[in-house]
Amino acid sequence: MGLPDIYFNSWSEHFLRPFGAIQIGRSVYFTIKVDGVNIRSVHLVVQKDGEPSYAVPMIKSLDNSSTYSLRFQTTGKSGLYFYHFHVVYLEVGQEKSIYYAKAEDNYGGEGRLLADLSSVQQYQLTCYDHSDPAPDWYIEGVIYHIFVDRFYNGNRHQMIRNPKKNSFIYATKEDRPYYIRGQDGDIVRWDFYGGNLEGIIAKLHELKKLGVTILYLSPIFEARSNHKYDTANYLEIDPMFGDRKLFETLILKARRLGMHILLDGVFNHVGADSIYFNRFGNYGGGGAYQDPSSPYYQWFTFHNDHDHYDCWWNIADLPTVNKEQKSYRDFIYGSEESVINTWTKLGVGGWRLDVADELSDEFIEGIRQVLDQHNKKGEQKVLIGEVWEDASHKIAYDKRRHYLEGGMLHGVMNYPFRSLIINLLTEKQSAREAARASFTLRANYPHDAFLANMNNMGTHDTERIFTMLGGDQKKMRLAIWMLMTLPGVPCVYYGDEAGVEGGKDPDNRRYYPWGRENKKIYSEFQVSIQTRRVHPNLQKGLFLPFSMGKLFGYLRYLANDDYTAIIFNPTSEMTTIDCSKCIDEMHDQMINTCLEQLSIDQQTIAPWDFLLVHCGN
Amino acid sequence: MGLPDIYFNSWSEHFLRPFGAIQIGRSVYFTIKVDGVNIRSVHLVVQKDGEPSYAVPMIKSLDNSSTYSLRFQTTGKSGLYFYHFHVVYLEVGQEKSIYYAKAEDNYGGEGRLLADLSSVQQYQLTCYDHSDPAPDWYIEGVIYHIFVDRFYNGNRHQMIRNPKKNSFIYATKEDRPYYIRGQDGDIVRWDFYGGNLEGIIAKLHELKKLGVTILYLSPIFEARSNHKYDTANYLEIDPMFGDRKLFETLILKARRLGMHILLDGVFNHVGADSIYFNRFGNYGGGGAYQDPSSPYYQWFTFHNDHDHYDCWWNIADLPTVNKEQKSYRDFIYGSEESVINTWTKLGVGGWRLDVADELSDEFIEGIRQVLDQHNKKGEQKVLIGEVWEDASHKIAYDKRRHYLEGGMLHGVMNYPFRSLIINLLTEKQSAREAARASFTLRANYPHDAFLANMNNMGTHDTERIFTMLGGDQKKMRLAIWMLMTLPGVPCVYYGDEAGVEGGKDPDNRRYYPWGRENKKIYSEFQVSIQTRRVHPNLQKGLFLPFSMGKLFGYLRYLANDDYTAIIFNPTSEMTTIDCSKCIDEMHDQMINTCLEQLSIDQQTIAPWDFLLVHCGN
Repeated sequence: MGLPDIYFNSWSEHFLRPFGAIQIGRSVYFTIKVDGVNIRSVHLVVQKDGEPSYAVPMIKSLDNSSTYSLRFQTTGKSGLYFYHFHVVYLEVGQEKSIYYAKAEDNYGGEGRLLADLSSVQQYQLTCYDHSDPAPDWYIEGVIYHIFVDRFYNGNRHQMIRNPKKNSFIYATKEDRPYYIRGQDGDIVRWDFYGGNLEGIIAKLHELKKLGVTILYLSPIFEARSNHKYDTANYLEIDPMFGDRKLFETLILKARRLGMHILLDGVFNHVGADSIYFNRFGNYGGGGAYQDPSSPYYQWFTFHNDHDHYDCWWNIADLPTVNKEQKSYRDFIYGSEESVINTWTKLGVGGWRLDVADELSDEFIEGIRQVLDQHNKKGEQKVLIGEVWEDASHKIAYDKRRHYLEGGMLHGVMNYPFRSLIINLLTEKQSAREAARASFTLRANYPHDAFLANMNNMGTHDTERIFTMLGGDQKKMRLAIWMLMTLPGVPCVYYGDEAGVEGGKDPDNRRYYPWGRENKKIYSEFQVSIQTRRVHPNLQKGLFLPFSMGKLFGYLRYLANDDYTAIIFNPTSEMTTIDCSKCIDEMHDQMINTCLEQLSIDQQTIAPWDFLLVHCGN
Repeated sequence: MGLPDIYFNSWSEHFLRPFGAIQIGRSVYFTIKVDGVNIRSVHLVVQKDGEPSYAVPMIKSLDNSSTYSLRFQTTGKSGLYFYHFHVVYLEVGQEKSIYYAKAEDNYGGEGRLLADLSSVQQYQLTCYDHSDPAPDWYIEGVIYHIFVDRFYNGNRHQMIRNPKKNSFIYATKEDRPYYIRGQDGDIVRWDFYGGNLEGIIAKLHELKKLGVTILYLSPIFEARSNHKYDTANYLEIDPMFGDRKLFETLILKARRLGMHILLDGVFNHVGADSIYFNRFGNYGGGGAYQDPSSPYYQWFTFHNDHDHYDCWWNIADLPTVNKEQKSYRDFIYGSEESVINTWTKLGVGGWRLDVADELSDEFIEGIRQVLDQHNKKGEQKVLIGEVWEDASHKIAYDKRRHYLEGGMLHGVMNYPFRSLIINLLTEKQSAREAARASFTLRANYPHDAFLANMNNMGTHDTERIFTMLGGDQKKMRLAIWMLMTLPGVPCVYYGDEAGVEGGKDPDNRRYYPWGRENKKIYSEFQVSIQTRRVHPNLQKGLFLPFSMGKLFGYLRYLANDDYTAIIFNPTSEMTTIDCSKCIDEMHDQMINTCLEQLSIDQQTIAPWDFLLVHCGN
């Protein structure tokens, strides 16, 4: 008697077919095992995102008395479905309800039984509009993220190119970054090291040697700050960095070495000190702040007077633009001479959209459509968005975002993988949790997007990975190899390959330590990047994570007989591979079959070491 | 009947002979006019500084029934006497006391009658030990005060010479100076423009063209800050400025152009970041902070632990040195390789002692004796002290200072003249007050010191003169001419001649505006310096200030038949010279005689203009 024995696993094709995200309009097959007497009904409780939920009865299998199935047809627009199961059974003559939903850890896969409906965490089913793969040059590449002011000054005698009035230059390149703030905490003078486009051009061969193929540049348009997220003029290169001609030279020289350039598009806000807002009158008499009849006036939202206006995170230096304004859309992407067109036609490979959550789906779609027009001219363009969480179900400003469902973003910055790497290597997360967390992401993201995410271990917005790992070179080595083998496009934050350390902003923005690189870490990056680039499995392969005691591993494969297995020992102990302990979250035996083929059972992995093996025909 | 009619004037030789400061041991002749019946007694009440006062009866003149006289012999050590007069008379059969003392405005000259002893402000009589004139090259010269970091970077491409770690360089030379402070107000990074000794060498010909003959340099020894009042090493030139060889080159090249160099000696405190204190361990394991067995430990005064120590104005960055320590005295001046010897023997013309009030008379005397030994080697050396007030009666730390009485300082920085110039030109002080104030200084200072004072209209510690005058070029012109004609050695604060403006520190330390000089002001400096340098009257002449209504003027003369008269119109009105209105504070007719000779009576002076006439044989 008692509770029925119920089991469902969203990652197993025995229970849900096909696996993961599907195209809207397709059907999925749900199966649930419900063992027990007196089962009265089994329902799939399903809810299209934003709509009321409803229950669909599941049908008892004829050949197996304990399974219930349902073919469920998805309909309407792309988006998310949420679901759980409702089982009614009889106990002592009374009808009782019980629910099956996601596990307590909120990951997918195996779930749990709940008597209490209010505790239910629903499974997610992602439905995309259409398959939307990123360009091959992108998927197969390795990105290098350059914070331009901090990379290299390519001028003779380290002369500063067009220094800005009332700003400071670091006395030595070894100086630690420092924000010069007034008593109210505002930045009163900007600080520069003097990195510029000449510097990137001068170092292209070194980057080629490192193995990277894509350069993602922090914003390069004219702006007062060192980071340039406060655009002053979208149509000019910042004079400290270079000019349009120099930028064309960079594109050309990079192209000759097989490298593409990604630009950082900052379209949510502009600088208060800009030709658009012109708070300080540095751009003549025009601009929204100075002149209500300015063509830019409508771009901003003022309250009462010109000193009160919408701005990003209440930073007065970053007035928010009203992105629904047609003239702004035309300026950014909707005209022949738009910002996107102007720079893309010079040969830029694509864009990373800053704070994508602040841009509407329509705005992003508009940019993408313009970018796609450039595809015809030969090379495909890529569009990536800055999102910090699992972007498959991101809600921003009370709106579910659809940017990964086709026709908008190819992928997003993959901060969840950064957390996974750090948590695993600092023993904050177990191997099992790492496997479940990464599998959840795989299942939630449309396959194309999952491969197109810009994976990072740190950016200009986070502590440096080497610092997060306590400066431990062995851990750093594992992190590097995880970055290069996880699904998605690896992105190396400049200096990480040199072993640079650094805490929170601004310490994470030190000048690149030319001549003082950590050679061990550098060569680890070089070798792992090379490995990544020669193995299609690591670029486009499916991803099957698993845990084996304290070992964390995954398979990457394009075909069942050609795969790469990577197993990490994130512990201080010599650990023996014990295939009998393998937890394959999919429960489909593929991993065990593979590991058997590799004959690695009972092999040992040294502390903080890993094993990478390819197996193919 | 009633009050007697009493009159005394400390500036008139009818009443006090000789005028002004005298050598100790000499006699002075006091005369006082007391008109009235029933005068019972007239006493000079006199007090040697720090001793009890006593009354000396004055003797009624035989030939003039209303004057009383006394020959008073000064004795003992040099120093000050203070005095007033006590007259007893009979009124309605009762003895009454009345006093004659300094005027309410506290200046000398004519005084006032007082019935109340407690209101008496005593006259001062300065007695010096011996005549102690400064070297001729100094007295006859014009000083140019260079704040080294802010003057000129003489390096190719404006490269910064040995930039200091974790400091900032101004992006452009036009940037406004700014202190980079942390939340607690402490300076967290130092800011530099990059001026250096190469820069001074490169500009020597321009300085020669300006007419200056003495360069007074802000501290040049190794130190962390831009101002270098926080000495790190007294025996090294700061590497951002140059090195010993370069300094020798500067001395040599300056000498060839007839220029002398004065150094800023900062001996009251050192930098916390120094080889002596070494708070931050930047100088190895030694230093007082790091090591109680350090030879420097005794130089400092610690309280309980090494984090609590005496420091200047409670600025932890400037630990005070115990200047009574023999090892410190030996280091600074009392040994062959002392700081004073090391640099003086390279050919330095002299020293300006920072915060002279913090150094004991003995310490200053010790330095002077060492400097005087260098005189034998040819050129005489000068020693000037930083004092902000009338130094003739300065009390510092409850001690009367004797540094101007012979054998110590030749002169001090003359901030009182700065106040006089500003107050007169901003109409905060009348012409009469200006005359009385300046005459008081003349009377109080030993004559040699008065001519050797380093007169300034502004320094690195004050607002710039042009700013104090509201950027008014006409007022500026008067100020320039006052500076060049008042007694004492004029000191031009770098940039004042270029019309630089600037408020309080750090705004008064802008970079020299090369190529953007105010040509009018520059040429006014040039002409007035030239005038000063060709007229011995202006260098060594006696000084007789007077007022004539709103006009302020003075005579400078070496002989009665060869004088220079300068009259300023510090008003916005055309003003006519009316000799009948002349107030000659000495009441000796010399001024009227001179003005008559010049035939300037009834001439007009335009608003904010002046008249300078020489009259001689």
